[in-house]
Amino acid sequence: MNRPFRVVGFGDFLLRLSPPGYLRFAQATGFNCYYTGAEANVCASLAVMGCEAAFVTRVPDNPIGRAALNELRKLGVDVSRAVFGGERLGVLYLEKGASQRPSVCIYDRMNSGVTTARPQDFDWSEILRGAQYFHITGITPGLGGNLPRIAQEACQAAHDAGAEVVCDLNYRSKLWPVAAAAKVLPALVEHADHLIANAWDARNLLGVETGDDPDEACRRLRTRFPRLRTVAMTFRTATSASDNTLTGLVNVDDVSFRSRAYTMHLVDRVGGGDAFAAGLIYGLGNHMKHQEVVDFATAASCLKHAIELDVNLATVPEIMQLVNGNGSGRVQR
Amino acid sequence: MNRPFRVVGFGDFLLRLSPPGYLRFAQATGFNCYYTGAEANVCASLAVMGCEAAFVTRVPDNPIGRAALNELRKLGVDVSRAVFGGERLGVLYLEKGASQRPSVCIYDRMNSGVTTARPQDFDWSEILRGAQYFHITGITPGLGGNLPRIAQEACQAAHDAGAEVVCDLNYRSKLWPVAAAAKVLPALVEHADHLIANAWDARNLLGVETGDDPDEACRRLRTRFPRLRTVAMTFRTATSASDNTLTGLVNVDDVSFRSRAYTMHLVDRVGGGDAFAAGLIYGLGNHMKHQEVVDFATAASCLKHAIELDVNLATVPEIMQLVNGNGSGRVQR
Amino acid sequence: MNRPFRVVGFGDFLLRLSPPGYLRFAQATGFNCYYTGAEANVCASLAVMGCEAAFVTRVPDNPIGRAALNELRKLGVDVSRAVFGGERLGVLYLEKGASQRPSVCIYDRMNSGVTTARPQDFDWSEILRGAQYFHITGITPGLGGNLPRIAQEACQAAHDAGAEVVCDLNYRSKLWPVAAAAKVLPALVEHADHLIANAWDARNLLGVETGDDPDEACRRLRTRFPRLRTVAMTFRTATSASDNTLTGLVNVDDVSFRSRAYTMHLVDRVGGGDAFAAGLIYGLGNHMKHQEVVDFATAASCLKHAIELDVNLATVPEIMQLVNGNGSGRVQR
Amino acid sequence: MNRPFRVVGFGDFLLRLSPPGYLRFAQATGFNCYYTGAEANVCASLAVMGCEAAFVTRVPDNPIGRAALNELRKLGVDVSRAVFGGERLGVLYLEKGASQRPSVCIYDRMNSGVTTARPQDFDWSEILRGAQYFHITGITPGLGGNLPRIAQEACQAAHDAGAEVVCDLNYRSKLWPVAAAAKVLPALVEHADHLIANAWDARNLLGVETGDDPDEACRRLRTRFPRLRTVAMTFRTATSASDNTLTGLVNVDDVSFRSRAYTMHLVDRVGGGDAFAAGLIYGLGNHMKHQEVVDFATAASCLKHAIELDVNLATVPEIMQLVNGNGSGRVQR
Amino acid sequence: MNRPFRVVGFGDFLLRLSPPGYLRFAQATGFNCYYTGAEANVCASLAVMGCEAAFVTRVPDNPIGRAALNELRKLGVDVSRAVFGGERLGVLYLEKGASQRPSVCIYDRMNSGVTTARPQDFDWSEILRGAQYFHITGITPGLGGNLPRIAQEACQAAHDAGAEVVCDLNYRSKLWPVAAAAKVLPALVEHADHLIANAWDARNLLGVETGDDPDEACRRLRTRFPRLRTVAMTFRTATSASDNTLTGLVNVDDVSFRSRAYTMHLVDRVGGGDAFAAGLIYGLGNHMKHQEVVDFATAASCLKHAIELDVNLATVPEIMQLVNGNGSGRVQR
Amino acid sequence: MNRPFRVVGFGDFLLRLSPPGYLRFAQATGFNCYYTGAEANVCASLAVMGCEAAFVTRVPDNPIGRAALNELRKLGVDVSRAVFGGERLGVLYLEKGASQRPSVCIYDRMNSGVTTARPQDFDWSEILRGAQYFHITGITPGLGGNLPRIAQEACQAAHDAGAEVVCDLNYRSKLWPVAAAAKVLPALVEHADHLIANAWDARNLLGVETGDDPDEACRRLRTRFPRLRTVAMTFRTATSASDNTLTGLVNVDDVSFRSRAYTMHLVDRVGGGDAFAAGLIYGLGNHMKHQEVVDFATAASCLKHAIELDVNLATVPEIMQLVNGNGSGRVQR
Repeated sequence: MNRPFRVVGFGDFLLRLSPPGYLRFAQATGFNCYYTGAEANVCASLAVMGCEAAFVTRVPDNPIGRAALNELRKLGVDVSRAVFGGERLGVLYLEKGASQRPSVCIYDRMNSGVTTARPQDFDWSEILRGAQYFHITGITPGLGGNLPRIAQEACQAAHDAGAEVVCDLNYRSKLWPVAAAAKVLPALVEHADHLIANAWDARNLLGVETGDDPDEACRRLRTRFPRLRTVAMTFRTATSASDNTLTGLVNVDDVSFRSRAYTMHLVDRVGGGDAFAAGLIYGLGNHMKHQEVVDFATAASCLKHAIELDVNLATVPEIMQLVNGNGSGRVQR
Repeated sequence: MNRPFRVVGFGDFLLRLSPPGYLRFAQATGFNCYYTGAEANVCASLAVMGCEAAFVTRVPDNPIGRAALNELRKLGVDVSRAVFGGERLGVLYLEKGASQRPSVCIYDRMNSGVTTARPQDFDWSEILRGAQYFHITGITPGLGGNLPRIAQEACQAAHDAGAEVVCDLNYRSKLWPVAAAAKVLPALVEHADHLIANAWDARNLLGVETGDDPDEACRRLRTRFPRLRTVAMTFRTATSASDNTLTGLVNVDDVSFRSRAYTMHLVDRVGGGDAFAAGLIYGLGNHMKHQEVVDFATAASCLKHAIELDVNLATVPEIMQLVNGNGSGRVQR
Repeated sequence: MNRPFRVVGFGDFLLRLSPPGYLRFAQATGFNCYYTGAEANVCASLAVMGCEAAFVTRVPDNPIGRAALNELRKLGVDVSRAVFGGERLGVLYLEKGASQRPSVCIYDRMNSGVTTARPQDFDWSEILRGAQYFHITGITPGLGGNLPRIAQEACQAAHDAGAEVVCDLNYRSKLWPVAAAAKVLPALVEHADHLIANAWDARNLLGVETGDDPDEACRRLRTRFPRLRTVAMTFRTATSASDNTLTGLVNVDDVSFRSRAYTMHLVDRVGGGDAFAAGLIYGLGNHMKHQEVVDFATAASCLKHAIELDVNLATVPEIMQLVNGNGSGRVQR
Repeated sequence: MNRPFRVVGFGDFLLRLSPPGYLRFAQATGFNCYYTGAEANVCASLAVMGCEAAFVTRVPDNPIGRAALNELRKLGVDVSRAVFGGERLGVLYLEKGASQRPSVCIYDRMNSGVTTARPQDFDWSEILRGAQYFHITGITPGLGGNLPRIAQEACQAAHDAGAEVVCDLNYRSKLWPVAAAAKVLPALVEHADHLIANAWDARNLLGVETGDDPDEACRRLRTRFPRLRTVAMTFRTATSASDNTLTGLVNVDDVSFRSRAYTMHLVDRVGGGDAFAAGLIYGLGNHMKHQEVVDFATAASCLKHAIELDVNLATVPEIMQLVNGNGSGRVQR
Repeated sequence: MNRPFRVVGFGDFLLRLSPPGYLRFAQATGFNCYYTGAEANVCASLAVMGCEAAFVTRVPDNPIGRAALNELRKLGVDVSRAVFGGERLGVLYLEKGASQRPSVCIYDRMNSGVTTARPQDFDWSEILRGAQYFHITGITPGLGGNLPRIAQEACQAAHDAGAEVVCDLNYRSKLWPVAAAAKVLPALVEHADHLIANAWDARNLLGVETGDDPDEACRRLRTRFPRLRTVAMTFRTATSASDNTLTGLVNVDDVSFRSRAYTMHLVDRVGGGDAFAAGLIYGLGNHMKHQEVVDFATAASCLKHAIELDVNLATVPEIMQLVNGNGSGRVQR
Repeated sequence: MNRPFRVVGFGDFLLRLSPPGYLRFAQATGFNCYYTGAEANVCASLAVMGCEAAFVTRVPDNPIGRAALNELRKLGVDVSRAVFGGERLGVLYLEKGASQRPSVCIYDRMNSGVTTARPQDFDWSEILRGAQYFHITGITPGLGGNLPRIAQEACQAAHDAGAEVVCDLNYRSKLWPVAAAAKVLPALVEHADHLIANAWDARNLLGVETGDDPDEACRRLRTRFPRLRTVAMTFRTATSASDNTLTGLVNVDDVSFRSRAYTMHLVDRVGGGDAFAAGLIYGLGNHMKHQEVVDFATAASCLKHAIELDVNLATVPEIMQLVNGNGSGRVQR
């Protein structure tokens, strides 16, 4: 396994500012800073896994924008296709929750480099040459401006280049209301070969009439979007901000494959979904069996919850060790 | 809801020094510093909730004393009635426990500003003008000097000003022995309209003959102290220093109202009782129904356990969200 | 109780470098530094408990080597018998795990001061004068060079001086393969009066035919190594890197004594076995009853898991409080 | 001295993010966070000096906006007149320079709360009641939107309320080009009773024909803007980012008063001008003699350079000690 | 050189709390903690130089008191003669100055363990057995209580044991007024064989009529206190809190020996005098020539100014390197 | 200017561990970690300047080795030619000096990956394809093992590929004695087209008879090593560890070009020479005039001294600004 293949992601890239530990915003005299974005996190996870991953975005041509790209480059992501421009890097203020206190997330991403991008900023046929997968989430068109159009063009170019489109719906209520998202997202999903979305998403954002049964939702999604080959999702039970349970599901040809359930004591919950998406792409690209794909993607996501910050730094051997049943966390020495 | 009303608290104010994270005193090369005091914490919580809260104390007229008051002012507490004087700020060394290792608390509060205060330092009729509540705990007279007398004068002035007295018994065995406390505290409780105390307190500190049944204890307390309208208490089950369960009880007119039980993974246990007291006062001042009062106060205390340091920084909407059943700690984004 | 007696330990001493909190190596811009070694940790724990403990090692004569010894001296360990020499201090890189993510441990200890020691560096009859116990682990001969021979000489000198030898087998798969260890360790255990090892160790490293039953293993160990008076071991159930359960067993005269089981939320797992060994020696040296010995040693180990870094800083009163059933971790104030 | 009087300031309020110590942006994994703004700094300095200072601004109604105001409240600034609104708090990224490496300053302040304020957000006659001074800088109208108009209204209201207007020209080339500033600033200075500006400012921004001689510049400024009673400025010689020399000048009735020159080893250069402005206002409000005013303002600014972050935390006795010639920085003990 | 000899010091031992870097008290959210005391610093410096140094004090029997002693033990100081008792460890709040801003020092040392000591707490003949030097400063009797008497007894016992008394006058105006000190200090100096004091001290505290000339002061001091063999002092020119110049003088038999002058960029000024005292004792104990003594002591003090915290961690080779003229601070690699 | 060209560097790569700020080793409870190596620093500086820079080394195949390479990749260095192998990453302990206290440097680099490399690990003709410059320092052959031979092969391959060899002599007395270096280094310099070395180096390490006059040394060096086209060096005057003066010299065709002298207040002295080398290569590669080359290289080195850690993060515009005379360090805003 571990066949090298090329993935391209496209989306926004933000400065994440978090108070240290469990301090609240009102207590912080400093922020830990990190750079994040759904598609960037997926690309970084894939680079850590050994894939060739390129991330396309637009950041301001100043030390902050360059520092942001450097963090991805450090992990092995190809950022040579990123474009410099725009006035600012978006900011995500994130206060980590604990026990019954939820995390708090404040977006300050208006007018970020990607938001003000123009279609001519990106030469997609050039960018996607040689790619097997193109990854995009619903956040990107949700940022407005020219992004819905650019997203369409990128997906079309991916098809033309022979790349499969992986779409993570990733609805964010603080970004846009359901009604607005429901106008934009179906057009994106039309292009998807592989979709991460659940029954609620299908019903409310994609106009698919379905109940809460995941198998039914997958079936109806594939009827409505015939291009879809894979539908995947995760189920999360949150006992508290500190403890969650996670299960994954991958549906192929109307057959569902489920991972086992992981009971997790959280270190950092952010990026758990992106780690699942990266694991899914890794499994697909390595032609794993369907059950292996969901096992790998869910184990990857599980490990992310035990890692600080947004990128899953778990390596393939580490993930496989968990897939193979060693979740005891014992130190090897 | 959220009717503005004025609360005045009176007590000591200390420098809290804690090793970072879970380090022991013997390992620390630095201390996190913060300023604390039972009544100060209550006032600060109420200020965060939007109440008009004034804290009265006596601190040395030096940069440390001024820095202490600044921290309260930052949170919106009116400290204009605090008095400068005395030689030193008391110090509380606090080592945070974990799992089976208990927290360690070392008091170094002798000769603090409040301890050496004289009655003429405070003009209570002026201070309490316009107040609806006066908050004091059993710690304050327990500090000795003129404080038992000053506490009496303050309570009397509260009655004269039409303010209700809220008394949290807050017995501290490291401060004074039971026998000494039992000589002083009944005279304080004589003044209380609202009391936080449990059956053990009633029996051992207030001379009330009662078994362990909370309802019986409340009934007998109200017989012994007829001024009392409310008796409140919390029940804590400590699995370990890391995990506790918390339930609240408010008894009015010999009828008890109980909150649901919260199973908490602790971030910082200190200040949990003060958060309950602040929630109680907030509920009373807003004329909540009895069940709402105990639900609000207990949810406030629960959230405090997930917040670093001594002051409950949870806002009213955050507390109401927990009261309304969302304790999953899921991030909203 | 708390009879002062003298313990001498001998082994390597390493610089431990750990990323802060739960960061991975790839994320760290700094390391917490500390100094560690199995026998050193045992000596330090015993010094904290009030014993006279001397640690013998060989460290380079430079500021790093001196800083290492200073940390032991700080805790009251007698390091006057340590020898300066060699080119470097060994390094242990340790990344703390959480939840399903295991800790990662990277040894860089080749050519450390102890590894290149010569027999004439240590005057054992002088060093062991007045000692009641000599403590050594299987790691020390496992480091190669002259250490198997030096270990033999030290044990022999201990017997000559009337000191009992306590041996913790402490097999480390990253240090040497089973086959290599099985050639060296039996000769060490020949000298042991007290042994910490379990059934797997007996079977694979000491050539003792036994199943997994601990009582059988103890019996067969004592048959094979007739000098042995005590065999002790711990049982650990690892739900995850964050949560473990621990039980201790001490077998004397083929009778096993078991502690109760502790369910622990881990702060730092490293040093848990060394804390058990120190507790065992403390119990033996104070002539505790057999049941008291295992209760004390296991409670000591349990508390270590709630303490950062490798040395158990729990004092005797703190351990006794846990032995006596107070594991609620409630703060005393 | 130390006559209490009321000052009102109006302007933007920003989050300042700085890498710790002398790290560059590209090296930072965290930022020290602080809140800053020219007028806010002046108000905070005056509050520390014991004046009644109110700061008017507009910040978003979220935890970041509230945390910003809390920092001013902590220092005693009256923020009850600040307005909640707008989408974001502006951000100032500041990398501290050293030796030959200059500090780097990146503004990200578009669409901050103040920038999107409307005239009706502020009831100036109410806000300025009882004020002796109104402080504003050229940055505020430079932020665009309705701010030039709001600034005019505020100045007019100040005159109506009997307050004197103190204007610090504070030209920022990264904010607006000279040509744009030259269109807006003269209208602001028309309202000023006291102006901080130098000969270059007068010539390039205020259309006053003058050479570089400060006395000439002051004279011509007062001819052009007859309302002006005081013109003040500082002269800075920068040997490097680490070492500066500072002198102050105050011109009243065409007579210039100069402070002595301070040779400073810089801790934090930001806020040095705001500290001068605060010292100037303090001197004016206390009816100091002209020479005393410039001595006090310059000493205040000098001390600010030895204090981290943007607000001058030097107290009046500390400033007076420097005015009186003790600049040796010897510790008193 | 480097003859081992034994020094005993006696005095208070304090917790020093300092904001990190150049932050002011009002800005600190944490303190660096360290343990300090004039005589303790001298003992620690001597231990670092390889001498046998014992420090006698009285600290509370709690984790803070024990942590304090541990820090000295870490550096090799014999603390086995320290006594446990008293209610608290004194606290010294120290804010580091810079440039024109002076350091701020707040004492909170009333009722510390030493202050409440009784004569019978110390068995001086036992403690001083085998000592060559007894070191005490004027601070110790200045703390009041039984300390003037205990200091007398200790000095007398030193004479009886054949140890020479080294007295550093160390007048602290925040501790006691000149008039009070002048009543107590002469009796202490009566016992001194070696004295650190300057002309101002001689005139104001010791009742010696002298001008400012150091040679005259030494001569008159030796006339007044005939036991004195050595009088030493330092001259400090403080350009600012960041830059000082230092020269040392040692006077023996009315002949003065002067070191060269060091121009220092300060890292931490505290403990500079104690480092001089330790260097003086080291030089005396090693029978250096008079010029060598002053050169060594002044170089030791100079290096202390480049070291954080209160103890001089410079080793003898490092000091000798500076004595021998290498003050360029070039890295050796 | 800023013509892209390719540079390849070859050498060791180390973990640098430094106590925070000005703490000594004996005080550190943590280390800042960074990765360093003379040639790696040069490559990183060139990558920051926009050049295509590849660094060749050998690091262990573990998370520490990978983290090391990631740091270079972050800055844009091509590490795809680095080889995984060997047991450990070398360690450099570095304690930062101040004022009269020198920095302390402890090497622990035996058996690092590069030290144990074999010739067949590197395919130099492949690696050097397309390179304009090959950079190596005298440290690399100084590490022993196969490195003198590998260095020879690399230089020969550079010539074959048309790349010029830049050699920085970089003698380290802690690495090898003069006599040993003098046997190895001339063979390396035989290959050099451009050499950084001074008169002392020429005389003691390269067997060139010359006095201290730099012009004479250059002339004689070029006579002895006829391949040499450029000889460069820097002159450093160290007032103290905090303050240095720096001047650069570049000699071409026996004509010397000197930069102006920079008086620097140091932030971090390490890497100053590597920054000069990178600036030299940048100037050569961009065909700057000789005077421009020395001005650029010296300004680059000067700025490095104001930057923490070993890599010069100054960009070309920042360096040019200093070359053009703006060394005042004023903030632009």
